Amino acid sequence: MRQFVVVGHEAPTEPSFSLDNLGGAGRLDLLCRCLNSALFVSHGIREDVRVHLVLSDTYTLSVDGETVRQVHPDERSIAARVREALEAAELAIGHQPAEPAPGIALYRMGLAATLERLATSGTLVTLDPAGTPVVAASLPEAPIFVLSDHQPFAEDERALLADRDAQAVSLGPRAIHADDAIAIAHNALDTDGFQQY
Amino acid sequence: MRQFVVVGHEAPTEPSFSLDNLGGAGRLDLLCRCLNSALFVSHGIREDVRVHLVLSDTYTLSVDGETVRQVHPDERSIAARVREALEAAELAIGHQPAEPAPGIALYRMGLAATLERLATSGTLVTLDPAGTPVVAASLPEAPIFVLSDHQPFAEDERALLADRDAQAVSLGPRAIHADDAIAIAHNALDTDGFQQY
Repeated sequence: MRQFVVVGHEAPTEPSFSLDNLGGAGRLDLLCRCLNSALFVSHGIREDVRVHLVLSDTYTLSVDGETVRQVHPDERSIAARVREALEAAELAIGHQPAEPAPGIALYRMGLAATLERLATSGTLVTLDPAGTPVVAASLPEAPIFVLSDHQPFAEDERALLADRDAQAVSLGPRAIHADDAIAIAHNALDTDGFQQY
Repeated sequence: MRQFVVVGHEAPTEPSFSLDNLGGAGRLDLLCRCLNSALFVSHGIREDVRVHLVLSDTYTLSVDGETVRQVHPDERSIAARVREALEAAELAIGHQPAEPAPGIALYRMGLAATLERLATSGTLVTLDPAGTPVVAASLPEAPIFVLSDHQPFAEDERALLADRDAQAVSLGPRAIHADDAIAIAHNALDTDGFQQY
């Protein structure tokens, strides 16, 4: 299984945002694109993928490629599903998520609790131009890629990742958008390190 | 320079579409994401890129990374720029484009005329899981990647590309979304064929 955790530093935690201005809604547009790149292939969904969007360190929206239904790849449709989940937030109690639709769960958890929840399901990888080149790195069997939105990781987030021995991997010399990085990470795995075409 | 031509088979040719349903507007959402992946890096624009969106073989919207201003990466903002350009369509006469904003030009040209227009500016490359693996292919100095939307290329489009000796390159074994393919093509070039990190 491949997992992607995307940290949205300013993402909405209330369903009151407008679908007409996702950029203004804490850059929810960016998180929606990450979910898209992580989940979709041409005319299909990657069933072996889970995506976790951390919303302002308050909630984490988890989407399971195996069980999610009726998602469309455009930003507005995905944002509408995020809003739906936030409308159900009061049902997220303790470690029990709200489950507004199949394959979609909203946890009342920030980054630390989410990493703890995922700890036994894979190995953390961060994407960083200063990390080990992906062609030289040996990616884990069950990678959990942790990415940040338009802001860099905060100091305490870096500390969390370091405490959990996250492996830093470089996808290239340029700093690129998180959704493009996800597409490249998938490609590195799909091709077994750019070897199988 | 890197160029990307994306063929939108059902894309709007009138500005009357709704920004609230880009998926329903001939999958304009997909074209917007392609423009995003082609043009943007983290907190910046790739100045050496030009993107050409072919709209239902009627118009081609060309965006020049060097001169375009005030574009935002979200689908809705990009679609609004496409709509703006279509509103100026009557100013596109013969081979003279409408230029509704700096770096944005709307040509009254379909795929054939666009490929003819670009013929001296680079070498055509198509992305195809059955092509030469990108790691074995020698990508041209000035590649013009030609991609299709959610539909495969039509027979006559394939013929056009073959006539112009387009090189078929594979990015991997899975059929992926065009915008993800663009991200990977950029990455292959940014890393000099997955060698420079």
